[in-house]
This record gives sequence, structure tokens and C-alpha cells, in this order.
Amino acid sequence: MRRNLLNKVGWCGWLFWSKFFLGAFENQMVKNYAVGFDVMAEPDFSKLGGLVPVVVQDYKTKEVLMVAFMNQGAWQKTLETGKAHFFSRSRNKLWLKGETSGNFQIVKEILVDCDLDTVLLKVEQFGGAACHTGYNSCFYQKLAGKEFEIIKKKRVFDPKKVYGG
Amino acid sequence: MRRNLLNKVGWCGWLFWSKFFLGAFENQMVKNYAVGFDVMAEPDFSKLGGLVPVVVQDYKTKEVLMVAFMNQGAWQKTLETGKAHFFSRSRNKLWLKGETSGNFQIVKEILVDCDLDTVLLKVEQFGGAACHTGYNSCFYQKLAGKEFEIIKKKRVFDPKKVYGG
Repeated sequence: MRRNLLNKVGWCGWLFWSKFFLGAFENQMVKNYAVGFDVMAEPDFSKLGGLVPVVVQDYKTKEVLMVAFMNQGAWQKTLETGKAHFFSRSRNKLWLKGETSGNFQIVKEILVDCDLDTVLLKVEQFGGAACHTGYNSCFYQKLAGKEFEIIKKKRVFDPKKVYGG
Repeated sequence: MRRNLLNKVGWCGWLFWSKFFLGAFENQMVKNYAVGFDVMAEPDFSKLGGLVPVVVQDYKTKEVLMVAFMNQGAWQKTLETGKAHFFSRSRNKLWLKGETSGNFQIVKEILVDCDLDTVLLKVEQFGGAACHTGYNSCFYQKLAGKEFEIIKKKRVFDPKKVYGG
């Protein structure tokens, strides 16, 4: 029976059809994997109206530099370029960090939290300062007694010179 | 004229009324200062419907442990008790971190960012784990290629034992 089938289809036929079936199976696997990836490798943007909070941490000093928000577009742009992109809530647009100051953030690692609704970027901070005020980190005010006190000794740059007065 | 007024009111009268007026002025000063303090030493809860994102960082290792949200009540409770309190968006209520697991966060430092709309808590993590999954940090998944990969080697506790299965 097996011999008859082989005779009928021939070796070339078998090779042709097995390649066809295996190829289809393989394509299906890749497709499922890709669908799985799309679902898996993206934060959950649904909880905060299309946004997720993003913590930016200096990959060497481990200092928390800033917190901003990403929408799906900013997430994609960050992956494509390797530079941190955010969604500016005040300007209501995509925002390449450093587009004015030149202080880009080169992404070294991307982590997500247990619920996939928060992103942690570990970055190399170009120009040494993440904050538009000129301080290296946006967290330069500490609660001391009953007031917020500036704890940084100096600014890395003069914001008037960088952004104009 | 001045002598006549003094005679009419008398020394005791002057002392009484000056104390009264100065006291009122002083009270007004304290009140203004207190109002100023309330405005100053509080994050800006207006941008995100009464909430601010809070980054929790281990005060020794500098690892980012989790991100949650505070409303004004959670902020006040954190200041009063020295233990991190948050507002649970899913349960819509004030939440003392560690109330079920016992893994409280003892606040060592409180910082706010340049816009006063984000808080950074530096904490001592009781029980060694901040995440309800049992990992020390909620950020245990890293983007590796096209997938999120678990980067932590082991859990600090078994979540089934702590929260029930």
C-alpha cells in the first residue's frame, strides 16, 4: 500500500508536497509566535487612557532621573530608535526626550512591572542632565520637616541658555 | 492729645489692646505660613484626577521596587505613620502597603519632581519583597529580543502561602 502510494506520487512529488505542508505548518508557528509577541511584548496601555507611567533610571548610578508617560506610539518609537520617547500630556504630542536640549536618553534596558502597566527604562543620559531645570535628576526636592528643600548642589546646565529665557 | 489719650485708656489698657492687636497679627502670620506650607509641601494632585504616580526605591540598593499611586489621603497617611500608603485604583480605596503580606515599606526619604506631580519614596522594604508575586521588585521582566523575560532567579516568598491560593 505504502509502496503503491510512493509509486503513484513519486519521490519528487513527496518532496514537493512535504515541503508545502511543512512550510505551511512553519508559517503558522511563526504567525502564532508573532501574535504572541505582539500581545506579550507591549505594556498594557488600557488602564490610564492609553498611557503608562515610565520611570527613567540612570543605568550606572541607579539614580531615578524622571518619570514621564508613554503611549503606544512613544513605545514603538523608543524600540525603533533606541532613544527614549514619551507622550507629553501638556503638549498632547509625541516627544523625543532631548529634542530641544540635545540631552537624549540612550536606552540600555527596558523592564515592565508585574501588571505590565508600568515601564522602567535604564538609560545613559546624554549631557548629564535629565531635567529641564538643569539638574541632573528631576527629583531635586526633598521633604525636610514641613517643606520641600532643594538637595542638589548645582545645575548641570543653565535652562535659560538651553531653552531660551 | 497723646497724653490725653494715654490718660483716658491708661497703661494697663494700652498693654491689653496692643497685645490683642499684635496677637491677631501674629495669628494671621501663622495662618498664612500654614496655608503656604500646605500648598508647598504637598504634590500637585490635580493632573491625574487626584492621583500622583509614586516610584518606590530601595534606599540601600537603589533598586526600583514598584510604582503605585497616591491620593491626598494616602500622602497624609504616609506622612503620619512613616509607612507607605497608596490608593488602589483596582479596589478604589486607601491601601497600606503590606497590610496583608506584612511587607511594609518604612519611608526613609520623600522626594518630589520638578513639577511636583510625581513622588519618589526611598524605603526600607520589610520582608525583602515589594511585589505580590513574591519577587523582591515588581520589575522582574525585561524586554529581551521580542519577548519579556523573567530576570529574577528566585522569589522571596510564595504568593500562594501569603495571599492564599
